[in-house]
Amino acid sequence: MLGLLLSVSTMVRAEDGSDLWLRFKGAGTADVTGVKGVAMDELKQYWQGNPVVLKKQKNVAKDGYVITTNGGKTTIAASTDAGLLYGAYHMLRLQQMGQGGAPVNVSEKPFYDLRILNHWDNPNGTVERGFAGKSIFLQFDPQKMKKYAQANASVGINGTVLNNVNAKPEALGVENLQKAKQIADVLRPYGIRVYLSVNFASPIKLGGLETADPLDKKVVGWWKNKVAEIYKMIPDFGGFLVKANSEGEPGPCDYGRTHAEGANMLADVLKPYKGLVMWRAFVYNPQSKDRAKQAVEEFVPLDGQFRDNVIIQIKNGPVDFQPCEPYSPLFTNVQKTQTMVEFQITQEYLGAANHLVFLAPMWKEFFGLVKPQSVKAMAGVANIGDDTNWCGHHFAQANWYAFGRLAWNPELTSETIAEEWMRQTFGNDDKLVKPMVKVMTESRDACVNYMMPLGLHHIFAGTHHYGPEPWYDAPGIRRDWTPAYYHKADAEGLGFDRTKNGSDAVSQYPKELCDLYNDINTCPDKYLLWFHHVPWDYKMKTGRTFWDELCHRYDKGVQQARGFLATWDAMQPYVDKQRFEEVQRKLRIQARDAVWWRDACLLYFQTFSNRPIPQDMEHPVHNLDEMMKFKIRITMYENPECGYTK
Amino acid sequence: MLGLLLSVSTMVRAEDGSDLWLRFKGAGTADVTGVKGVAMDELKQYWQGNPVVLKKQKNVAKDGYVITTNGGKTTIAASTDAGLLYGAYHMLRLQQMGQGGAPVNVSEKPFYDLRILNHWDNPNGTVERGFAGKSIFLQFDPQKMKKYAQANASVGINGTVLNNVNAKPEALGVENLQKAKQIADVLRPYGIRVYLSVNFASPIKLGGLETADPLDKKVVGWWKNKVAEIYKMIPDFGGFLVKANSEGEPGPCDYGRTHAEGANMLADVLKPYKGLVMWRAFVYNPQSKDRAKQAVEEFVPLDGQFRDNVIIQIKNGPVDFQPCEPYSPLFTNVQKTQTMVEFQITQEYLGAANHLVFLAPMWKEFFGLVKPQSVKAMAGVANIGDDTNWCGHHFAQANWYAFGRLAWNPELTSETIAEEWMRQTFGNDDKLVKPMVKVMTESRDACVNYMMPLGLHHIFAGTHHYGPEPWYDAPGIRRDWTPAYYHKADAEGLGFDRTKNGSDAVSQYPKELCDLYNDINTCPDKYLLWFHHVPWDYKMKTGRTFWDELCHRYDKGVQQARGFLATWDAMQPYVDKQRFEEVQRKLRIQARDAVWWRDACLLYFQTFSNRPIPQDMEHPVHNLDEMMKFKIRITMYENPECGYTK
Repeated sequence: MLGLLLSVSTMVRAEDGSDLWLRFKGAGTADVTGVKGVAMDELKQYWQGNPVVLKKQKNVAKDGYVITTNGGKTTIAASTDAGLLYGAYHMLRLQQMGQGGAPVNVSEKPFYDLRILNHWDNPNGTVERGFAGKSIFLQFDPQKMKKYAQANASVGINGTVLNNVNAKPEALGVENLQKAKQIADVLRPYGIRVYLSVNFASPIKLGGLETADPLDKKVVGWWKNKVAEIYKMIPDFGGFLVKANSEGEPGPCDYGRTHAEGANMLADVLKPYKGLVMWRAFVYNPQSKDRAKQAVEEFVPLDGQFRDNVIIQIKNGPVDFQPCEPYSPLFTNVQKTQTMVEFQITQEYLGAANHLVFLAPMWKEFFGLVKPQSVKAMAGVANIGDDTNWCGHHFAQANWYAFGRLAWNPELTSETIAEEWMRQTFGNDDKLVKPMVKVMTESRDACVNYMMPLGLHHIFAGTHHYGPEPWYDAPGIRRDWTPAYYHKADAEGLGFDRTKNGSDAVSQYPKELCDLYNDINTCPDKYLLWFHHVPWDYKMKTGRTFWDELCHRYDKGVQQARGFLATWDAMQPYVDKQRFEEVQRKLRIQARDAVWWRDACLLYFQTFSNRPIPQDMEHPVHNLDEMMKFKIRITMYENPECGYTK
Repeated sequence: MLGLLLSVSTMVRAEDGSDLWLRFKGAGTADVTGVKGVAMDELKQYWQGNPVVLKKQKNVAKDGYVITTNGGKTTIAASTDAGLLYGAYHMLRLQQMGQGGAPVNVSEKPFYDLRILNHWDNPNGTVERGFAGKSIFLQFDPQKMKKYAQANASVGINGTVLNNVNAKPEALGVENLQKAKQIADVLRPYGIRVYLSVNFASPIKLGGLETADPLDKKVVGWWKNKVAEIYKMIPDFGGFLVKANSEGEPGPCDYGRTHAEGANMLADVLKPYKGLVMWRAFVYNPQSKDRAKQAVEEFVPLDGQFRDNVIIQIKNGPVDFQPCEPYSPLFTNVQKTQTMVEFQITQEYLGAANHLVFLAPMWKEFFGLVKPQSVKAMAGVANIGDDTNWCGHHFAQANWYAFGRLAWNPELTSETIAEEWMRQTFGNDDKLVKPMVKVMTESRDACVNYMMPLGLHHIFAGTHHYGPEPWYDAPGIRRDWTPAYYHKADAEGLGFDRTKNGSDAVSQYPKELCDLYNDINTCPDKYLLWFHHVPWDYKMKTGRTFWDELCHRYDKGVQQARGFLATWDAMQPYVDKQRFEEVQRKLRIQARDAVWWRDACLLYFQTFSNRPIPQDMEHPVHNLDEMMKFKIRITMYENPECGYTK
């Protein structure tokens, strides 16, 4: 009777998305022997197949595992506890996907040693560009932390930066370190190390020193003491993530020192503990004629100067997590420096927690040009908050999942990952899985179409990065904080000339790509306005003029978003009521927002193009002057309730 | 120089729609001789062709005219001044339509003797169901009255009821009569007579009597005095329009008298002056099982009892000016009583002054079943207010125009009328005229599709007749004032069973139609839900189930409305800026409202049908619960700014 009640209550809870993709059901009676630990606990609880033996075996790659089934018995062999756990989750994943029975022979190991989440969580519990509520770390909740650990470990994530890169000095205060220790203690059995973002001026603000100059001995001394304090509390502490001299944050340049001098000082202090410095390359100053060039200009001269426990953390694109950017050329311009790629899982620029946009195709696009082996690690800015469903949008969970899976194996296809996630999260009915995998894999293309097709970028609202404001401007504002800096619309055409005749950003790419991008006739459509100021009447490959093509792309995005909604509506028989309706509401917002984007951008750019909207597409239904007056009043810590309301 | 200035100022003024379809340009120097009067004035000012002679000729039908051109000279012959004026406007219309030169041989006469507007204007200047501002009669403005007279005369309208059928007793007070006299004096030269709506209780409220019983001598005496007073001031006064014992208005039934006794009393009083009584048949009581049957039930027993200067004024449909109704069976049920049809030019139920809906096709549909010769006259509820463009929506002017033209000649096609109006109002470029004539003639079908397809009716909001509220209900409200009374949605199906098995309203139609409508398999689609409660899975002629067909009709309406917008957008090169943009804004509202209608009705009816929205159409983007909470706060005297905002 009690069992029945518990089972019902589990089912009910499962409807709200709080279980993520970990919707295992089990009797807790599986026959599992061998190495004790979390791997055994998870299998005992949830495994429904034949007996399993967990075995330590030195010749298996670090964190990898070998699964073999022989004579009705399955062995998971690994050299580390984490490896055993990953093997266990491999078995449970297959079981959940309906691929019954244990695998006969599997050998896996992670592609990257470091697979790390970056939380942009603030001490007061707000989450920068967080669209799923408050920080999960604000109130320490052992149950929530355990679920967080399970979810991460199930996809191989083995590190987490607990606080915002725009770090407050208090991040290293005793109170915060105590909390970090509590969290680390929960995460440790799941193979996850804790890291912290640090404020470079901490020695002043926290330590009372007069300087934070990295070459000042007192400063170095302060950091040594602080690091010793941390490792006393958290022996396996991972290291520091640093955003320095970027968007107003303090850094070594404030004292005439280089990024390398700043990073190396911290690296030296962390070295005895095997700690790591992840130093962000997200730098740009207001005077530059082309923000996209600055990371290369600033960091390439420092190539070779960094310690071996420093990794330069570079955003995938040269500007800032746009729906579609070419890769950041810094990746191919440093030779003697370790780099890691920073992806953004939270959808700062891709519809927040309102739009279904599966990001794996975007990340795969990056790896199509930057070979996975050329970077050392993968970081992802988390989309996690204290919302019941963790990510605000049920389908946003898939981006957390995909990040982990790609960090484990960047060769996995978007379709494979989408299908894995769908089956585990929503069940194995092909009538549901196949259409929604199609929606997921098409969704980022749709988002690019209705927001910023053909290489457009950063034409977002001034006060949030949710809706369109290609017209946004404000008195005295930095030019590189206005959309006109990026779209450069005028009577002749649209787009940022980054060719050799323009800002020459194109020359930061290897010759073959440089030549390809530099020529308007060979530049891929998706990067066209990134590299070229394209005349309105330029003839596109489709035969249309550029203006007509732009219109058609926007409208295609609208039709795609509507198509996703129609597909989801047909999924009603296969999805529980709560998640069905919650996703439906979001898809409706997305479909309406797509129209808002199309109308705002086309009507605004039309004031430059002076050309009609093509007859063979749907025409704008909103008025430009009204859209220009419309404002969404939200902070960078909130998900907008919906888009344009008129 | 002064002439040039005047001409420029005329052009500028002309861009705002204030000139209606009367956009004549002329040097004021035409060679016009013969009968002096307004006909001569208009031709002298605007005619640009050969010399014209105006001639009185007794054998021409009343208000008709004969135009002949011989040897470079054109003669307009008529038996009345009005006939000459109509002939003059005929010439100017052709000139404006670019059909240069005077006609060689034309003979025209009006189909109906009485072609009358009903203004629902209140003494305080509000206009019931008026969407174009305040009453044009509130402040007497001779210039505006002259333009009003010209516009009416140009399409043959020869009567106007100055005040609301829900008449205040003050309508017959001295002040109002003085104003009516001022107006009548301006209209008289244009062949237009003035009428008034009267409150049946006027003898009590205005005269201080204790009763308004039509058989009471004092009451009759009061009316005699009042009528004498009116005719002293307005010798050609037309008569009274009466709404009695309807929607709370007083009437003869309050004293146990019949409608006939009430109407006849007033008719007898007016008879010596050749005055007319237009007695409305718009009656229904809250207890009836079928409101659509009541006019017949109440008026047929009185057939033959009315005086010969009484005309029963019947709305075209049996309920109330819905986007699509079968004709009111009262028309074919009275044999010995004069009837006139009341159309509603103001778009109370067809999108107010926001939607482009050309009503000629709806009125032609009526005349397809009720032969024009079977009724004596045509009344139209005016859509006129003090807005600069008179009607709120530039294209709403076309409905005023069409009403006049159809009252003159009900055989004119919708296309002909639309083209006449387009050419005069927007110019003669075929690139503009042809597409917009197509839009106009399709527009009412579109409106029916996105509001109430397949015979649905009266599922409007409770507090206005603009948006959808098929769910509307309120405690203690009359059932016939709630949409459920009309749509009768339930788990089995949708629609009002008015067959012989239902309310039997179908039996009020002639046998042939009765049989046609009574059988679900022969009933025209457009009246299906009017006459039948249709099962959700009923197989339609298209092969679709009824539910799927309903969904597709709604979506078709959305696509049609969007198509109108796209067509209009392409007209930009051919239309002045102000009118282009004003119409574009309205069409954008209409396209958005169409989505609102589709989503609200389909999602609400889906709660009964429990069937999915078909995959091969666009799916609802709004949420039912949010639409159900949404209210537009407007009075019945206002045009809504726009529709659903979410």
